Amino acid sequence: MRQSKYFLKTSKTVSDEDKLVSARLLKQAGYIRESVAGRLFFLPVGQKVQQKIIKIVKEEMDAGGAQEMLAPILHPLELWKETNRTSTTGFELMKVKDRRGAEFALGGTAEEMLVDLVRKFEVSYKDLPFHLYQFSSKFRDELRARGGLLRVREFIMKDGYSFHVSEEDFKVTYEQMKKVYSRIFERMGLKTAIVESDNGYIGGEYCHEFIVESKEGESRYFTTEDGAYAAHEDIAKFIRHREKGGEEIKERQDVEGVGIIGVEELAKFLNIPVEKTTKTILFETDKGQVVAAAVNGLYDINEVKLKHAVVCVDIKLASPEVVKKVTGAEVGYAGILNLSKEVKIIMDESLKGRQNFECGANKTNYHSTNINFGRDLPEPETFYDIALAKEGYVSPDGKSKLIEKRGIEVGNVFQLGYHYTNLMKGAEFTDQDGKQKPYYMGCYGIGIGRSMAAVVEKYNDERGIIWPEVVAPFKVHLLALKGAEAEAEKIYQSLLKDGIEVLYDDRPLSAGAKFADADLIGIPYRVLVSEKTLKEQSVEIKKRSSQESKLVKISELIEQLKM
Amino acid sequence: MRQSKYFLKTSKTVSDEDKLVSARLLKQAGYIRESVAGRLFFLPVGQKVQQKIIKIVKEEMDAGGAQEMLAPILHPLELWKETNRTSTTGFELMKVKDRRGAEFALGGTAEEMLVDLVRKFEVSYKDLPFHLYQFSSKFRDELRARGGLLRVREFIMKDGYSFHVSEEDFKVTYEQMKKVYSRIFERMGLKTAIVESDNGYIGGEYCHEFIVESKEGESRYFTTEDGAYAAHEDIAKFIRHREKGGEEIKERQDVEGVGIIGVEELAKFLNIPVEKTTKTILFETDKGQVVAAAVNGLYDINEVKLKHAVVCVDIKLASPEVVKKVTGAEVGYAGILNLSKEVKIIMDESLKGRQNFECGANKTNYHSTNINFGRDLPEPETFYDIALAKEGYVSPDGKSKLIEKRGIEVGNVFQLGYHYTNLMKGAEFTDQDGKQKPYYMGCYGIGIGRSMAAVVEKYNDERGIIWPEVVAPFKVHLLALKGAEAEAEKIYQSLLKDGIEVLYDDRPLSAGAKFADADLIGIPYRVLVSEKTLKEQSVEIKKRSSQESKLVKISELIEQLKM
Repeated sequence: MRQSKYFLKTSKTVSDEDKLVSARLLKQAGYIRESVAGRLFFLPVGQKVQQKIIKIVKEEMDAGGAQEMLAPILHPLELWKETNRTSTTGFELMKVKDRRGAEFALGGTAEEMLVDLVRKFEVSYKDLPFHLYQFSSKFRDELRARGGLLRVREFIMKDGYSFHVSEEDFKVTYEQMKKVYSRIFERMGLKTAIVESDNGYIGGEYCHEFIVESKEGESRYFTTEDGAYAAHEDIAKFIRHREKGGEEIKERQDVEGVGIIGVEELAKFLNIPVEKTTKTILFETDKGQVVAAAVNGLYDINEVKLKHAVVCVDIKLASPEVVKKVTGAEVGYAGILNLSKEVKIIMDESLKGRQNFECGANKTNYHSTNINFGRDLPEPETFYDIALAKEGYVSPDGKSKLIEKRGIEVGNVFQLGYHYTNLMKGAEFTDQDGKQKPYYMGCYGIGIGRSMAAVVEKYNDERGIIWPEVVAPFKVHLLALKGAEAEAEKIYQSLLKDGIEVLYDDRPLSAGAKFADADLIGIPYRVLVSEKTLKEQSVEIKKRSSQESKLVKISELIEQLKM
Repeated sequence: MRQSKYFLKTSKTVSDEDKLVSARLLKQAGYIRESVAGRLFFLPVGQKVQQKIIKIVKEEMDAGGAQEMLAPILHPLELWKETNRTSTTGFELMKVKDRRGAEFALGGTAEEMLVDLVRKFEVSYKDLPFHLYQFSSKFRDELRARGGLLRVREFIMKDGYSFHVSEEDFKVTYEQMKKVYSRIFERMGLKTAIVESDNGYIGGEYCHEFIVESKEGESRYFTTEDGAYAAHEDIAKFIRHREKGGEEIKERQDVEGVGIIGVEELAKFLNIPVEKTTKTILFETDKGQVVAAAVNGLYDINEVKLKHAVVCVDIKLASPEVVKKVTGAEVGYAGILNLSKEVKIIMDESLKGRQNFECGANKTNYHSTNINFGRDLPEPETFYDIALAKEGYVSPDGKSKLIEKRGIEVGNVFQLGYHYTNLMKGAEFTDQDGKQKPYYMGCYGIGIGRSMAAVVEKYNDERGIIWPEVVAPFKVHLLALKGAEAEAEKIYQSLLKDGIEVLYDDRPLSAGAKFADADLIGIPYRVLVSEKTLKEQSVEIKKRSSQESKLVKISELIEQLKM
């Protein structure tokens, strides 16, 4: 491609909004442009990269036995109503009406569409498992879009859906897809952590995100030094502080302590260690259930974990009115003692086995100390995991400490189980016994634009992008300096003839301008033709990823590039 | 691909609605499925065909110097307002609002988006021309969808937009793209007529549709026997009947003729030839202008031509009230005599040079005869082409007669000229003289699904589809009959190893069922492995397009297939 004819315009100016390296570089180098916030053009050179990523994903998905298809972008809204997803998607759905009044959702994910497609066929156990996937535009009505490709409102996603006779059969595909995904990202030059994640309203244990470590990432997760454990902050487990036990049971006291805020201050005031204090927080669910969540004062509450413990779609802090009503006290003195029966009490594992602990007295200005299970309140049947993991906490295997990391989620795999097949009538196969049974499902996503951004976040320097060859828009950036145009043209033709992807900078610009653009655009091999190199019948080859350059005879250039 | 694992389900039943061969066969053979009317799933085997078509289009577009990019599907509605296209698109636009209240159009075509993209860059005359194109989902809120892929509400279109310094420069690209398009369709096995068409509100002489002749097509056009002329019915020209002239000017008469309907009846009643009668029809434009359109009684009026003559966006028959008001007579007696001044009179070329002709008297029950220009009404400065072409009329070159044809429009190319660049502020380039000038534009579309349907309409028989190899989902359909599975498996592996695209029917079905499916699906080469063929270390090869089959040694199979 001749650069003089290519719609590739680099820019020296940087928008203040583009704080992300990938956003800044991809725009400056002419790969992407914003239409409006969160909706992007892929310019020709950017579309080339996008297609190379798609090609890698397709090759590996096909090799893994998945089958590409394509669903409409507009989904009949009735389908989303069938699964109650019009309001509980976790992302804001966009809806549109046609002129006959039919309502549609702009596809965010396609579970309902795929189930609706498959249920219209007669499916036998012999047909299962199968795995259908597509590359298509997805829509998310995000409140805030981030610059570049990391959080957008419209993007190409590879979304796949697998259908199985059983959970057991699903597990096989699930483990295989984890390998397929690792290979996909590895081929792009991305090292991914496979991070246990929250499966939202679907639940279940099979849910992993593929995360590229990056300070710019929006995903926070925890790992251990040996890498054996990796879990998203929403679900990360850790081992709680345990009392030795065997204490002498002391007499309960209700101590007056006006306006004391925070467990440290309270512990000091009561002259007890912080680990003897308790945090009790009151919540309300989307269905109006009041919940008292209690953790050892050492910890904080994780609302995602709490939602799962309560089994609800949404939860928020209770209003001061509700707190007063159920505790009989002002906010700040809630405890797990003598709460009205309508309150559901959820105790964290960190409360298990405690003796002589403090908790709010449910009486304004009062704190109860030396509380004990059995005497002051019944010990619950179940203690839950509702505490927030933090760096330095003991890892679940007890052998090391949690390390906090941030990263970019580029893919995810998770079970759908029977969630959709139970909600959607007729989503069944005929089993060996002749009976109709719902299929068990899995789901697998990869963000194409995000993967592109993650590659740039990882491969860049102060001068520009440094594409790994496999996703680079071109292999070679051929630069003709003044006086060397005729020879450069010959080299350009011979590279084309040999099927080497080459961008030929044939513009009448200074060497400096061409070098700067080449570094910014980031094509792996820069091949320079100048009067100086021609004196030795040579060109200068420089890898974008390296500082060194070398002279290579023109006659050996293609051989060199193919090595 | 193993058919037992492939989501490819053929069906024996035919929906009553699928009257189109392509719709019926593509559904029965498992290529496409409807989500709702006009919105289709491409199943894995169908998506393969779609991608092969896309690949051909991409290769030829790239070879023609066009550059692939990708625009968002949601277009800011302000852009469409800038060009007054929210209501005048010729197709019903779908609109959607996001949760911040921003309005978007679901892309129908992308002129505004591309101009908006390009105008945000500094463009110099040195950058021009360039041609940007994309493959993306387009939305049309069609009132009626037709079964299959011919008239749908959502489809993948290749749309391209070229930018030029001048009309002259555009013409070069335009002629080149006509060649590119012919090659694209030729590669798919489609012979296309390049048919002059109506360029709607854009106007101008450069507008052609690529039409595959088919009885099922929705496009009606006219050609001549030698093929030198091809024009869409909307604009087809023809040579009018001409009077010899030199008649003696007769006295005008107003003849009473109550309730006479139609020119034949009138001619008989007045005892004159039909060619002496005149049809005068009253219309109203979208802006309320009343128009009297007149043609020789031999012809009918073409409303598309009339719109261009009047220069308006929309036109419809005038209401009886309006007719009464401007003619002073009941409907049926309108003429071009003594009309009130607010009426715009448009006379067809067929009125030129007439003498002693009849026309409505603008007086209930009366017809005027022996009307002559100059004496009874002024001769207009311009006669227009507003008559409808019909089969058998004399072709524009006067040498032959028009032949009426129907076909499927698979692509179109047309000038946008300065239409968008004049309406969109800042859509300019810096010319050699340093001045800012609007760019001249062209536009080029191909319907991918329509092309697929057109191929099936052309290549099929009573048993199913007969894919041309270049767009076939697989090259080989390998059928294993009972007892030959082990050997078939070996052949399958060796074909895969050799990179031959093969669908392997490994299902435990009867030979008859496999043959029927193979014929329906339409893969070019059927390779049969049975105990009988194995006795001769052979397989049987049969081309789908031929009745003959032949035995080929297994050792020579790959060589044979590569021939």
